[in-house]
Amino acid sequence: MSRYFTKRTINRGKAPGSLVFIGERKSDETILNLIQYNEKEIDDFIIAESDLESIPEKIDTEKTSWLNLDALHNLELMKFIKSHFHIHPLLMEDILNTGQRPKVEDFDNCSLISMKMLQLEGDEIAVEQVSFVLSEGLLLSFQERPGDLFDLVRKRLVEAKGRIRTAGADYLCYALMDTLVDHYFDIIGQVGDKVEDLEDVILNHQDQNISTTIYKYKREFRVLHKAILPVRDMLLKILKSEDNQFKQENRQYLRDLLDLCQQALESVESYREQLSDYHNTYNTIVNNRMNDVMKVLTVFASIFIPLTFIAGVYGTNFENIPELTYKYAYFIMWAFFVVIIVGMVIYFKRNKWL
Amino acid sequence: MSRYFTKRTINRGKAPGSLVFIGERKSDETILNLIQYNEKEIDDFIIAESDLESIPEKIDTEKTSWLNLDALHNLELMKFIKSHFHIHPLLMEDILNTGQRPKVEDFDNCSLISMKMLQLEGDEIAVEQVSFVLSEGLLLSFQERPGDLFDLVRKRLVEAKGRIRTAGADYLCYALMDTLVDHYFDIIGQVGDKVEDLEDVILNHQDQNISTTIYKYKREFRVLHKAILPVRDMLLKILKSEDNQFKQENRQYLRDLLDLCQQALESVESYREQLSDYHNTYNTIVNNRMNDVMKVLTVFASIFIPLTFIAGVYGTNFENIPELTYKYAYFIMWAFFVVIIVGMVIYFKRNKWL
Amino acid sequence: MSRYFTKRTINRGKAPGSLVFIGERKSDETILNLIQYNEKEIDDFIIAESDLESIPEKIDTEKTSWLNLDALHNLELMKFIKSHFHIHPLLMEDILNTGQRPKVEDFDNCSLISMKMLQLEGDEIAVEQVSFVLSEGLLLSFQERPGDLFDLVRKRLVEAKGRIRTAGADYLCYALMDTLVDHYFDIIGQVGDKVEDLEDVILNHQDQNISTTIYKYKREFRVLHKAILPVRDMLLKILKSEDNQFKQENRQYLRDLLDLCQQALESVESYREQLSDYHNTYNTIVNNRMNDVMKVLTVFASIFIPLTFIAGVYGTNFENIPELTYKYAYFIMWAFFVVIIVGMVIYFKRNKWL
Amino acid sequence: MSRYFTKRTINRGKAPGSLVFIGERKSDETILNLIQYNEKEIDDFIIAESDLESIPEKIDTEKTSWLNLDALHNLELMKFIKSHFHIHPLLMEDILNTGQRPKVEDFDNCSLISMKMLQLEGDEIAVEQVSFVLSEGLLLSFQERPGDLFDLVRKRLVEAKGRIRTAGADYLCYALMDTLVDHYFDIIGQVGDKVEDLEDVILNHQDQNISTTIYKYKREFRVLHKAILPVRDMLLKILKSEDNQFKQENRQYLRDLLDLCQQALESVESYREQLSDYHNTYNTIVNNRMNDVMKVLTVFASIFIPLTFIAGVYGTNFENIPELTYKYAYFIMWAFFVVIIVGMVIYFKRNKWL
Amino acid sequence: MSRYFTKRTINRGKAPGSLVFIGERKSDETILNLIQYNEKEIDDFIIAESDLESIPEKIDTEKTSWLNLDALHNLELMKFIKSHFHIHPLLMEDILNTGQRPKVEDFDNCSLISMKMLQLEGDEIAVEQVSFVLSEGLLLSFQERPGDLFDLVRKRLVEAKGRIRTAGADYLCYALMDTLVDHYFDIIGQVGDKVEDLEDVILNHQDQNISTTIYKYKREFRVLHKAILPVRDMLLKILKSEDNQFKQENRQYLRDLLDLCQQALESVESYREQLSDYHNTYNTIVNNRMNDVMKVLTVFASIFIPLTFIAGVYGTNFENIPELTYKYAYFIMWAFFVVIIVGMVIYFKRNKWL
Repeated sequence: MSRYFTKRTINRGKAPGSLVFIGERKSDETILNLIQYNEKEIDDFIIAESDLESIPEKIDTEKTSWLNLDALHNLELMKFIKSHFHIHPLLMEDILNTGQRPKVEDFDNCSLISMKMLQLEGDEIAVEQVSFVLSEGLLLSFQERPGDLFDLVRKRLVEAKGRIRTAGADYLCYALMDTLVDHYFDIIGQVGDKVEDLEDVILNHQDQNISTTIYKYKREFRVLHKAILPVRDMLLKILKSEDNQFKQENRQYLRDLLDLCQQALESVESYREQLSDYHNTYNTIVNNRMNDVMKVLTVFASIFIPLTFIAGVYGTNFENIPELTYKYAYFIMWAFFVVIIVGMVIYFKRNKWL
Repeated sequence: MSRYFTKRTINRGKAPGSLVFIGERKSDETILNLIQYNEKEIDDFIIAESDLESIPEKIDTEKTSWLNLDALHNLELMKFIKSHFHIHPLLMEDILNTGQRPKVEDFDNCSLISMKMLQLEGDEIAVEQVSFVLSEGLLLSFQERPGDLFDLVRKRLVEAKGRIRTAGADYLCYALMDTLVDHYFDIIGQVGDKVEDLEDVILNHQDQNISTTIYKYKREFRVLHKAILPVRDMLLKILKSEDNQFKQENRQYLRDLLDLCQQALESVESYREQLSDYHNTYNTIVNNRMNDVMKVLTVFASIFIPLTFIAGVYGTNFENIPELTYKYAYFIMWAFFVVIIVGMVIYFKRNKWL
Repeated sequence: MSRYFTKRTINRGKAPGSLVFIGERKSDETILNLIQYNEKEIDDFIIAESDLESIPEKIDTEKTSWLNLDALHNLELMKFIKSHFHIHPLLMEDILNTGQRPKVEDFDNCSLISMKMLQLEGDEIAVEQVSFVLSEGLLLSFQERPGDLFDLVRKRLVEAKGRIRTAGADYLCYALMDTLVDHYFDIIGQVGDKVEDLEDVILNHQDQNISTTIYKYKREFRVLHKAILPVRDMLLKILKSEDNQFKQENRQYLRDLLDLCQQALESVESYREQLSDYHNTYNTIVNNRMNDVMKVLTVFASIFIPLTFIAGVYGTNFENIPELTYKYAYFIMWAFFVVIIVGMVIYFKRNKWL
Repeated sequence: MSRYFTKRTINRGKAPGSLVFIGERKSDETILNLIQYNEKEIDDFIIAESDLESIPEKIDTEKTSWLNLDALHNLELMKFIKSHFHIHPLLMEDILNTGQRPKVEDFDNCSLISMKMLQLEGDEIAVEQVSFVLSEGLLLSFQERPGDLFDLVRKRLVEAKGRIRTAGADYLCYALMDTLVDHYFDIIGQVGDKVEDLEDVILNHQDQNISTTIYKYKREFRVLHKAILPVRDMLLKILKSEDNQFKQENRQYLRDLLDLCQQALESVESYREQLSDYHNTYNTIVNNRMNDVMKVLTVFASIFIPLTFIAGVYGTNFENIPELTYKYAYFIMWAFFVVIIVGMVIYFKRNKWL
Repeated sequence: MSRYFTKRTINRGKAPGSLVFIGERKSDETILNLIQYNEKEIDDFIIAESDLESIPEKIDTEKTSWLNLDALHNLELMKFIKSHFHIHPLLMEDILNTGQRPKVEDFDNCSLISMKMLQLEGDEIAVEQVSFVLSEGLLLSFQERPGDLFDLVRKRLVEAKGRIRTAGADYLCYALMDTLVDHYFDIIGQVGDKVEDLEDVILNHQDQNISTTIYKYKREFRVLHKAILPVRDMLLKILKSEDNQFKQENRQYLRDLLDLCQQALESVESYREQLSDYHNTYNTIVNNRMNDVMKVLTVFASIFIPLTFIAGVYGTNFENIPELTYKYAYFIMWAFFVVIIVGMVIYFKRNKWL
């Protein structure tokens, strides 16, 4: 799991800043999507890989442009983007390294924001890196593979809902970041609901594999924590810095996003505590149950072992055992047995073992 | 439980700021209550839903007004309130999202304060969101359903006790916040008393379901912690800010409230530690008891198993067993048994097993 | 235990600042003691409750005065004190609420300092609230019941030892606070000594109720922690504030007191860690002992159960069991038994079970 | 393990700053390597120990020089270096003490940076100290033994890749530090992969020595933590200081390195949490398994012990046992046995023991 | 153990600042040693107790003087020192209270530095308080009993090694503090080596008393932690303060000492974590071993208890048991036994119990 968050340097020893894709290649497709808009119009292009050279002429600096790339592994394309948009080598290295921790970095005329897009695939959380390069009037977004959570933002752009068509590239960037953080809540909610459901299972001790289940949920919340914590740090950094690509009038939206991240972190923390409490409670329940099992065994053994011994004694073949010939001996033995059993049961009852 | 504190975004992808109620609809009723007062007079209106349009003319800007709404789910009403009182879209979104973390937010001419109203319903803590919108001379309060803790404040207003009639809307807001925090103490006290009572049960080990009980109390304190911690942060933020809706002369009341929150948090923390100590102590007691059970079993088994074996040996039907024909063999066997039993008992006594 | 630190609001809904005694009424007596002194003289009055009105004329503003009241529950008296000495309503509320967390609060011309007086009563720590109201030349002290730790300070005043007669009301206040903190050390030391004595008991595992004992000491250190931590915060606050009732020349004594509190907190923390270590060590010892018990049981059962089975086989009454008629069969069986026993013992020895 | 991080002072009582090698002598060889370069040329010398005196004349102050020494134990050499390069005694002491914690220290005209070079040797992490002395145009590097991770940097120097040939000694120092930190990631990744693989082993409980394995990985992450944490502190200190050997234009590379260290620390922390979760989960699984074992034992014993007792009773040799002569008694006994067995099985099924 | 760090006030109620020795009297001897030196000469006097009055005339203000006293319990001497050297009463109180936490305190013309001298006596760490009073040209040092770690510093003084003869009283004070901290490392190293050795014992589970041993080492590291942590705080305080007895040119030595303390603390912390890991690992190993024991018991009991039952059935003396008369019945029974045993063994093998 932690693999998604650990930079495995393949370019060790190479000049820092050289162009190498680090990560798992998740797709073979290369999709480029350019959306340009101002208050009145909006254009949406899908650009063919062969048609790369046409990008510069397509971009209309009068409008706000959003160029979305779904193919980090395509180094040719990356090289073209790097040179055409004058992207700093260190920045490009960060984009291409999908093991990157979420962060913001300010360069001369642009800011890099990298975050994790989390998606629940079955029971596992799939982690994908999304990087935004934000400059005046232009937002580049880089994803590892096609398919994302941004369709609703695209719809809002087309339908010209809210401030989105007028508020510039930084507001668009905020809207996309907000979508990612919103989806963290969806995942927290979905995993959290499963965690809440565990409570009944544990308290009614219906299941044996609960420790494995608890472990798995803990792991998912660790993934969430590692995705969200640096986003909070990042937002704090953006808000503290006097001078970056986010305009003052859009800053209150970022503050809102910061509150959301704080809340998400507290939820994650709370669920982790809850899982720890589950674990402790479950352990105590298991111990109690073992105690019950031991008591049953002990009660049975303590009652019958001495009785069996007595019976064994009168099963011996000694020639001279006076009791054997006494007429009521057998019945006396039974009476004796009953006395012992009743005594034992009373004793165990008093000790609350029965 | 954490559900009350996790924003589940239904408006994902919509423009941030659009009007959607997020949460569980707890009531169908819509109650509007307007209280207006100055030092000399006080008016108390219940406004019918159909009579909404009359609100503006009823509000007397010479007096301090408190408009209380018990119906977040009523979006028509919310829309009217929003447009009539010029409430910022982000602020309205916060009010309508009942999964909101308690917070304060300052807007141009008003402040939003959202808190949790906690109420013990049976053994569970019910969580309801209360939002205050405070501006000069006017306090709006939004609740999820009718029924609240504010009747005593209303009584004080009517009876003109203390500073409340003269000290403005910010003091009224403080008085309501104080009521909520005071009630946290009531709940801490009530749950805390039950926790204290647990001590006897644990130390005298009278109950098996204690781990479940401990778990449940831990959960309640987690709810309390999540309700109180952000209130403290909020008060710190209000007190640090130079310029907000709270007047300097009322600030010492807020400082007092901050002390209360700090104290409430420490109480919660202390009870949580106490519950953890309970858990550990209980586990050790269970272990000790299991040890006792094992010892009983081991003592019985260790004494009688060898004896039964001996008896078994003389129960075999071999034709040639010399001992069987010896006249006192049976009595010698018994003597041997007694020696073994006595020896074992001494051995176990010395090892403190008996 | 936490009850002493949790404000249980009886005045919920009343105007903040109204006069209500909150806490357990610990005494019916009302004792007023006024001590006035300057470098040369000292007067010590016990004032009767009926004689309240005489207080104002008795106070000599040329001297330093210390008025000590042992009766928080006497609201009549409190009202008189409040109005005569012009005490702020919030301050009076803090004095009367014995569930108050220790704190300092600065008002216009006086400071409130509230602390806990701890006393060991048997095995329990009794908690009493002591509040000081310090103004120029006058110190009021409020206690819940007669009997305190201040007799030695009174003796020093009478005997005119050290700076105490010349250094003003703030130094007197410091001397009283110092006495309270010094007594914390006494209690830490006394409980700590008992904790140290536990070590032998645990490491030699002589006792079964140790987990209960550990729990009880943990609880006492939690009481101490809750009494001392806010005192440290309070002293830091006094020392940081430029302008309060403590004169610069007496501040180094407060710094000394701060060091003491820090040291007391570290001692408490250290004892708590020690108790946790005890708990863990004790658990492991219990586990080891259970392991030993299980081994004894297993060794006995594993050796004799198969033997008993063999004996049982030859106790069957089949008509045709060839071995039974063989003359040495019985002795061969015994030889076989011995071989098995010896083999088992060697096996268990090798596995370190014996 | 901690031995590599604990200064064992052999020079106790000597003047601080005297020349003593503290640590394990890891090699007998002494290798000196001098690389000098500017944008156009690069020279690479291996200097014989006997040829020490030639170093001064070889160093060309027009170029950037990197003198690498692989022999801390060679005090003669150290003395020469110390006096020739005017190295401060405290700095030299730090270089020679291989138990040093990573740190940066600024001296008049040079900075000392000491770090740990970690290498996986089999399952163990080998720790070696590398110290850099950075001054204008000259970088000295000190290693404990020949063989390092810097070959790729040397290759980049020779191939003149990237900025390395033009950016001065501080950039070279950064490149070497980057290589060390990069290698931390390699090790975290390699150990981390083994940790991830553990998950299957634990959840399918195939192995008994897992607690030992978990312990060993925890130890390795502790080594990593102790190597990386001070590097982060060191970088923070370098970046905060206005004035040191690192030029402003190279500082963003250090910021990048700081991010890497932060990320490495979070990875290490996350793996440690994961290992703790493993441990807890494994303990619960072991407990559950023990419970299962106990249940099997209890079921067998509870069913057969009473039956054996009944059989024993009718094996007694009393003369008068009426049942024995009844013709169908034996079959009735069997019927009774079957009823007991079936009843027990149903009982245990209902209690979920079977 | 914590006793050495807890002030047990015997002077409760006395004027703060009165002269009382608090602690265990560790020696009856009184030794005074005066060393005076400048760059050229050094004089070393042992002063008899009767010769106290001669001290003033012996002290040569042109030289640096170090007066070392080994007798805190000698209150007469202390009084003389106090009055002759004009030592502040609070300072004197701190020197005489051996339960003091290490600290620095600046007075008008001198600084008090108090530290703990730790020495390993057998397995226990002996704690002794050493206080330094540093003023211009004069260092007083106070120890609880004769015998210390400072002989090597004395030797360096005599041999005039390093800066020590020229660098003033503050450097001397640093050298003595450095010696104490250096010795902390010796102790950490020695206890640490024993801790490292534990690893084999635990992983090969050769010992039962390991939990006691772990507990004892934990206690020793707690002593070390309590001695070192305040020293770090103290050094930070000295370095932060603009104006104290330590000259700027000697401050880098203090920074070095601070690094050492930081490193010592990290080592202590790391060993404590290691001991906790040991404890957890050991617990799991014990649990696993118990599991093994239980399995052996269960396997034996489950196999033989049913067989013994069968044998018991055919040992009954019913008149009509048809099987008994069948010729091969006995052999069929044995065949049945073998089938059951083999089946059980296969079953247990499949469940990995064998």
